[in-house]
Amino acid sequence: MQTTHPPESHGPGHALERLIFFSDAVFAIAITLLIIEIHVPEVHPPFTDAAFLRALAPLSVEFLSFFVSFFVIGAFWAGHHRAFDCARHWSPKLVLPNLCMLSAVAAMPFFTAFSSEYYGHRVPSALYAFWMMLIALANIWVQRLATSPPVVGEQVSEAHCRVIRQRGVATLLGTTCAFAMALVLPFASQMTLATIPLWRMLLQRVSRPRG
Amino acid sequence: MQTTHPPESHGPGHALERLIFFSDAVFAIAITLLIIEIHVPEVHPPFTDAAFLRALAPLSVEFLSFFVSFFVIGAFWAGHHRAFDCARHWSPKLVLPNLCMLSAVAAMPFFTAFSSEYYGHRVPSALYAFWMMLIALANIWVQRLATSPPVVGEQVSEAHCRVIRQRGVATLLGTTCAFAMALVLPFASQMTLATIPLWRMLLQRVSRPRG
Amino acid sequence: MQTTHPPESHGPGHALERLIFFSDAVFAIAITLLIIEIHVPEVHPPFTDAAFLRALAPLSVEFLSFFVSFFVIGAFWAGHHRAFDCARHWSPKLVLPNLCMLSAVAAMPFFTAFSSEYYGHRVPSALYAFWMMLIALANIWVQRLATSPPVVGEQVSEAHCRVIRQRGVATLLGTTCAFAMALVLPFASQMTLATIPLWRMLLQRVSRPRG
Amino acid sequence: MQTTHPPESHGPGHALERLIFFSDAVFAIAITLLIIEIHVPEVHPPFTDAAFLRALAPLSVEFLSFFVSFFVIGAFWAGHHRAFDCARHWSPKLVLPNLCMLSAVAAMPFFTAFSSEYYGHRVPSALYAFWMMLIALANIWVQRLATSPPVVGEQVSEAHCRVIRQRGVATLLGTTCAFAMALVLPFASQMTLATIPLWRMLLQRVSRPRG
Repeated sequence: MQTTHPPESHGPGHALERLIFFSDAVFAIAITLLIIEIHVPEVHPPFTDAAFLRALAPLSVEFLSFFVSFFVIGAFWAGHHRAFDCARHWSPKLVLPNLCMLSAVAAMPFFTAFSSEYYGHRVPSALYAFWMMLIALANIWVQRLATSPPVVGEQVSEAHCRVIRQRGVATLLGTTCAFAMALVLPFASQMTLATIPLWRMLLQRVSRPRG
Repeated sequence: MQTTHPPESHGPGHALERLIFFSDAVFAIAITLLIIEIHVPEVHPPFTDAAFLRALAPLSVEFLSFFVSFFVIGAFWAGHHRAFDCARHWSPKLVLPNLCMLSAVAAMPFFTAFSSEYYGHRVPSALYAFWMMLIALANIWVQRLATSPPVVGEQVSEAHCRVIRQRGVATLLGTTCAFAMALVLPFASQMTLATIPLWRMLLQRVSRPRG
Repeated sequence: MQTTHPPESHGPGHALERLIFFSDAVFAIAITLLIIEIHVPEVHPPFTDAAFLRALAPLSVEFLSFFVSFFVIGAFWAGHHRAFDCARHWSPKLVLPNLCMLSAVAAMPFFTAFSSEYYGHRVPSALYAFWMMLIALANIWVQRLATSPPVVGEQVSEAHCRVIRQRGVATLLGTTCAFAMALVLPFASQMTLATIPLWRMLLQRVSRPRG
Repeated sequence: MQTTHPPESHGPGHALERLIFFSDAVFAIAITLLIIEIHVPEVHPPFTDAAFLRALAPLSVEFLSFFVSFFVIGAFWAGHHRAFDCARHWSPKLVLPNLCMLSAVAAMPFFTAFSSEYYGHRVPSALYAFWMMLIALANIWVQRLATSPPVVGEQVSEAHCRVIRQRGVATLLGTTCAFAMALVLPFASQMTLATIPLWRMLLQRVSRPRG
């Protein structure tokens, strides 16, 4: 991944757009593949309404996991979107961290299926939260590159970039809490992800004096 | 999802385009994943033409459901397309409603498979129609944002936006009818979706005196 | 699908681009999903080279079908590409035919898997060829719209549009031959698709005197 | 695939962009489908932490293969990206080689699953490496077209194109080594892919005198 790229050979953003596009496609596929892990339940005759509702009841956990993972991947996508919205210049150094992040995102359907099939057990819950910590770390790496020179646009304010990076850190803190909770109270691990906005507010308050 | 976005840092539509692009990809994947729920039937020797046709016969219901869901998702995509065609300005408030709508669309392969495997039964048919009501509601939410300030383009006429929103309401009314029908006559539920154009015409006639 | 679209509210090609984009995504997903119908063969110990080769042998038919379907969908994609390359203006009339074509393309993984699992039998082979005839018909419909007013660009020559439409007809003739062959000699049906370039040359020779 | 395309009928890069876009989508889907070959392991009660860890242990090989294939496909995507970054003019001659390459990429989930399920055996490892050699060959073919007239942009330096082509050759040499290693020491085959950067450096050193 050398910097052999002649920057003058193309208009701004062309190579960048293709990277963004490819990332969007991987995010979209990973997010949509989550559903194929939820299988149609077997219902046996007589096909009463009660029989169907009984067959659907155990799926509620799988649907909960589907939505949590959908919105978590969606939030990472939104963070990627936010960071690359500041990017204006291509750098081949973006390729490897971005692929690392995408590979972690692409693996989410497995960890979602594993943690929802054995819902509330320590190892699957902790693995799920741990994997999200990995995505959050890769996310911070990618966002730092996208909001720093030479990638960031000249007219993007430093304050705006700092907010984006803070949100990345807040996500890492939230997923770390979810991991810690999974070790103690596996059932409550997914709920702990809801602390992410709290971390974000805390970090904003802490950093304000500087600004 | 704060409005920390500096609107001056990018040309019109860039952030918007990425949201549209991501939505298109999720729509496209959900619509194409529908087919993987239809499995190749088992045929046993002797492999006569009659044996193959007998094995294919029960798939007719699954193909019917495939096409209904394909065109329903296609219609929601067309509605999304129509609404965002009026959008010109990015707003971070679009992200959450759009993700809600996409999560409901992404879950369609499950509900399609469930209702087609137990075709004509009340719970699967009602659940299928209920899920489409949820998509229709999210669709109205997203379309309202896309056709209102600050997102809508200044040169887009109010009349044009009203037509788009009316179509969203017509879709909700049609899916509500399909849900009601599923409770009474499950077999006729999918056909009831065909009332959507009727609701559209009715709403247009009702709203015309105002205009 | 009324023509309530204000053509002045957006630059040329924006709505069109989104339709093209969505189509590309569906083509790409359908073409890539073909592989998931090929399952890893079961090999039992002792794991000798011969045991693996014996287990792989029956997959040769599935790989043949994979490649035939891949290049057939790829050819339809290239035809779509060619036709929309001439398009410059949006028309809401494009939505329905395009969705019809995409739904037929999206169903290809099923027909590919069915015909390759029961390779050389009449019903699966005929169904496969018949389905491609449907795609070819939808393709002609879409291509005609894309290469005619009001969609076609003013600077695109009539001769160029005629060539594109001829290729669509040649594809239909080739798939019709494959269907006829499937009824008589199912094994030879896929090979008959190779007549498509011959039909193309024939049609070009026939139409030349006019030009 | 005749050159009936009127080059004057569209701005530079439009047809090219659609080819690039379609390729990106196929790369993204193939790379993300890799995960669905990893199935949730069955765990039986009592659900102790040890039981989960024992069930996960055999998946380590599958995850290793997932990541190797992810980064290999990612590297081919990056190479495609690099080559088409130099392309400025459309040529219908790009379609067939590009489809050949994409069909080989799309088949990777099968070969990844096969070689990881029977990890360390000669036939699956050799087949995996052989398939990557095919992709590397198709890659060289596509890259040569994209970095040569009439496709390449006039302002792109010959030196830059040579570097891109050298990297394609280095990838072929690395995958050939992996294939040779698979025949002798199947376990070490995947690791041999790590020689690709060495080949790249070697080729650069050899070609420098010329420049």
